[in-house]
Amino acid sequence: MSREPRVRGFQFAGVHCGIKKGGALDLALLLSDRPASVAAVYTRSTVPSAPVLVSKRRSRRGIGRGVVVNSGISNVAMGARGVADAEQMSANAAAAVGVRPGEMLVASTGVIGKPLPMECIEAGIAEAARDLDPLGLPRAAEAIRTTDTYAKLSHRRVRVGEHFVNVAGIAKGSGMIEPRMATMLAFVFTDAAIAPKPLREIWKAVADETFNRVSVDGETSTSDTAVILANGAAGGRPLASARGEAGQRLQAGLVAVCTELAMDLARDGEGATKLVTIEVSGAKSPAQAERAGRRIANSMLVKTALFGRDPNWGRILQTVGAAEVRLDLDRTEVDLCGVPVFRNGASTGEAARVRAGSRMASPEISIRIHLAAGRASARFWTCDLTYDYVRINAEYTT
Amino acid sequence: MSREPRVRGFQFAGVHCGIKKGGALDLALLLSDRPASVAAVYTRSTVPSAPVLVSKRRSRRGIGRGVVVNSGISNVAMGARGVADAEQMSANAAAAVGVRPGEMLVASTGVIGKPLPMECIEAGIAEAARDLDPLGLPRAAEAIRTTDTYAKLSHRRVRVGEHFVNVAGIAKGSGMIEPRMATMLAFVFTDAAIAPKPLREIWKAVADETFNRVSVDGETSTSDTAVILANGAAGGRPLASARGEAGQRLQAGLVAVCTELAMDLARDGEGATKLVTIEVSGAKSPAQAERAGRRIANSMLVKTALFGRDPNWGRILQTVGAAEVRLDLDRTEVDLCGVPVFRNGASTGEAARVRAGSRMASPEISIRIHLAAGRASARFWTCDLTYDYVRINAEYTT
Repeated sequence: MSREPRVRGFQFAGVHCGIKKGGALDLALLLSDRPASVAAVYTRSTVPSAPVLVSKRRSRRGIGRGVVVNSGISNVAMGARGVADAEQMSANAAAAVGVRPGEMLVASTGVIGKPLPMECIEAGIAEAARDLDPLGLPRAAEAIRTTDTYAKLSHRRVRVGEHFVNVAGIAKGSGMIEPRMATMLAFVFTDAAIAPKPLREIWKAVADETFNRVSVDGETSTSDTAVILANGAAGGRPLASARGEAGQRLQAGLVAVCTELAMDLARDGEGATKLVTIEVSGAKSPAQAERAGRRIANSMLVKTALFGRDPNWGRILQTVGAAEVRLDLDRTEVDLCGVPVFRNGASTGEAARVRAGSRMASPEISIRIHLAAGRASARFWTCDLTYDYVRINAEYTT
Repeated sequence: MSREPRVRGFQFAGVHCGIKKGGALDLALLLSDRPASVAAVYTRSTVPSAPVLVSKRRSRRGIGRGVVVNSGISNVAMGARGVADAEQMSANAAAAVGVRPGEMLVASTGVIGKPLPMECIEAGIAEAARDLDPLGLPRAAEAIRTTDTYAKLSHRRVRVGEHFVNVAGIAKGSGMIEPRMATMLAFVFTDAAIAPKPLREIWKAVADETFNRVSVDGETSTSDTAVILANGAAGGRPLASARGEAGQRLQAGLVAVCTELAMDLARDGEGATKLVTIEVSGAKSPAQAERAGRRIANSMLVKTALFGRDPNWGRILQTVGAAEVRLDLDRTEVDLCGVPVFRNGASTGEAARVRAGSRMASPEISIRIHLAAGRASARFWTCDLTYDYVRINAEYTT
């Protein structure tokens, strides 16, 4: 890990444009000084936000220069006006930094059903363009926050072929949307040289095993967006394939950065007191492994048990069974925080239960389940379900 | 609705056999005085309880005499011993009332991973056989309770062809399993005469639109069981088809009884303060309507908003969108407690919001969503997500 989250050829800014109260940063500008390969994954919601509609069209080209993001208002369910505002916002940003509007992606996160204050945003963009800084990524991470309790940033230096390349990324809170304003946004930057097509292939694989494996409450926002820009500033011939050793090393670097961000999203889930890592193995197929992991991650029963430090293997087995996942119960294994609590079709006894329960006081909990039905595995991250989750989401009065 | 839940040719008992503390009823015996047509639906969990395995095999024959049920211990994850115990329990019950073991179904609900106390159960069965009473259904309803705050019973008198027939049913708490012991069990009795095959067809349809449309927390227990016995004591030739007018009338009577039971299950969900009825219309297909309804019913965000009396149409739309359900946002309609809160792609304004919010103080809440994508519809029942849900499930210490 390098000390400074600097990626050659990129500059970043985070400013206060006036959407959030109290001067909090609410507008970020993320820019490459040269055309970069772009790949992105978006929410599959049938009610996508206007910025998602606009960015999706643009990222399909595979080349871009940057992203402009606001927090506080999400630009969802605003009809034709929403799309016009998203286009206007990206056109302002493009003009402010001297690139074409089609080269600028756009994202918004915050409350649904309110129009963007376009004058504030325009002024904020002008300020952000003046503030652009190679060391500005922490401020940008701050500016995309909504209910996140801390800004999320990760970076790595990895060797790809003959070059060392930098990878840095920022993300914001997973959990929900209006009115608590959490949407998953992630923006990752690398100075590696890679063509758009292999970048897209790698990015999809990276998102699938990192951001798509986090769940706070099983909800998908209308605005979820994860973008990568690779500008080649590290030098070298652009990678033409995702398959070779260089592509695999770049992918590993991206997985490391995105895993760190994904774990932060789960750790900082609304009301969470625990980061929970779920490891499923012995599944009949990758789809079954993923289903089992996702089901455990979203189970209200499991999540309340974790909050209560209850080493409840019964709830884990029950939710996997309910997901119609194949398992051989007599050979199924469940470990909690490294303690075997279920073997040979039964509890391993009271002593193990007590030991697991006391380890569950930790802010990081692991659940390992081996299904004894095959060889596929999957990893998921989630958090516990707490009084604070209910308070945050019930006591908000609109 | 008749005053007494009496169904000709049936007798019922509920006794305390010693599994629950403090003398609470924990064993029920449900018996027809003659061979009855039987149909049943069971959990689809891949970790079914031993009683489910045994009953499934027996109900396939289509003819039976009764059911024996215990509450307090669920007989799950006990290996070969579990199946032997379930067989023993039903053999005891069959012997006590003078029928063949294969004519007796069995169900258990309660904690996972503990063996059934077979001696207590055997003594309880003997006592229950002595207590059998045509008016014993309320005691049986009491004896199948676990975390339910009240016993659930419904009955109707309906005209089927030339005969009036009685339909009565009992059910117990939906929500979860070990260690809070809620599993959905329902037992319904009618003196209508109907052959096993049409009864099975009708029962599946009834369960699909009643018990399968309730969700407290999205979990399926390892022991879920819904059984109907039709003994023909009302007289007349047995119905040979589910399709004719008589079959449809019987089905309507069963739907009425099972809807009442299903609504009680949602109303009495763990920690619930509100019964929520969700009506989805304008869906592209029945599967899409069901998916939208189920997703709303299971959304932690929607359920916390309902607890907080927050007329939050944004969360409803977001969760439907996340389920990848087709909708035409500009023509989508959302009503909360009868108040239109979303029309023409936008909020209907602050006044409607306030009106809906004040109506949401009621213990019964309705959510209506029209998707404007087709003509299919579905109805679901759920409850809100409260501090008490978290307390009940987190503070239980094992």
